[in-house]
Amino acid sequence: MPYVTVKMLEGRTDEQKKALVEKVTEAVSETVNAPKENITVFIEEMSKNHYGVAGVRKSDE
Amino acid sequence: MPYVTVKMLEGRTDEQKKALVEKVTEAVSETVNAPKENITVFIEEMSKNHYGVAGVRKSDE
Amino acid sequence: MPYVTVKMLEGRTDEQKKALVEKVTEAVSETVNAPKENITVFIEEMSKNHYGVAGVRKSDE
Amino acid sequence: MPYVTVKMLEGRTDEQKKALVEKVTEAVSETVNAPKENITVFIEEMSKNHYGVAGVRKSDE
Amino acid sequence: MPYVTVKMLEGRTDEQKKALVEKVTEAVSETVNAPKENITVFIEEMSKNHYGVAGVRKSDE
Amino acid sequence: MPYVTVKMLEGRTDEQKKALVEKVTEAVSETVNAPKENITVFIEEMSKNHYGVAGVRKSDE
Repeated sequence: MPYVTVKMLEGRTDEQKKALVEKVTEAVSETVNAPKENITVFIEEMSKNHYGVAGVRKSDE
Repeated sequence: MPYVTVKMLEGRTDEQKKALVEKVTEAVSETVNAPKENITVFIEEMSKNHYGVAGVRKSDE
Repeated sequence: MPYVTVKMLEGRTDEQKKALVEKVTEAVSETVNAPKENITVFIEEMSKNHYGVAGVRKSDE
Repeated sequence: MPYVTVKMLEGRTDEQKKALVEKVTEAVSETVNAPKENITVFIEEMSKNHYGVAGVRKSDE
Repeated sequence: MPYVTVKMLEGRTDEQKKALVEKVTEAVSETVNAPKENITVFIEEMSKNHYGVAGVRKSDE
Repeated sequence: MPYVTVKMLEGRTDEQKKALVEKVTEAVSETVNAPKENITVFIEEMSKNHYGVAGVRKSDE
């Protein structure tokens, strides 16, 4: 605890994902006073045809 | 806001997904009085071997 | 199937939520060709202090 | 109702997933007194580079 | 890992929830061969006015 | 995009939650190169009787 889920469009590099997990864990640890060992991060990717704002998918823009 | 997630079995066509995002956005906008620009829709697909009702997966029926 | 989750700020009336479930179900049924009996809708409410964009919570704006 | 989501690392066999859906459904049915027909189970798999504990992804250990 | 979320209508007793967490953990542990210490269970409750099937909320039936 | 959900036990102060949203947004922005305006953070709280590890809820420890 806490459990963090980051949902984003696919396409980030592996280095970006690695840094994302590391830095988000630090940000959570510092602000809610939780030891880093207790923090879990999940990355969920979505494709542009499965994500829309204002009724229009990113793949249709 | 609002954020809508539609979870369904894979297999829909791209045209169906496009219409889904458009029409769900309209339905949400009209009923909860939110501007369409503020509405986000995510589609999540699952396979038949990852989804079961009454203890039996769709892939095993 | 499908399963729809609508996440939004608290404060909508019961009538709005009733209409939301009805109209979203219709929109999903028509666009992905699923019988209405198979469609489930969940509403999840969040408070303004648990939701932020650009690093600022709605309760702090 | 209830709806159960099991999120785990990819790599389990199809037989394991089949048994998982069956046995989790039974456990839920017995403990909360719900008929099995009303219980839905979703499996969500994640890859090692999308899952981290203590700031380090499983793919980086 | 694994992480299990059980979403259900509010109203279960505390004893039922305690048994649910215990028995679901056992079912997952046995079927996917994961040590119980690695298994996490979350319970999420919803109210009858936030849950609908076939376009009708449970609170409106 | 991205959308971040932080799930944690209830009990954090409002100041901690405010800082959490701010700092997590910065961490995501820097690591995946997304403008802060595009980043959304949701906080979800759970109670000790709805969260268990190794088959035992936090409220029963």
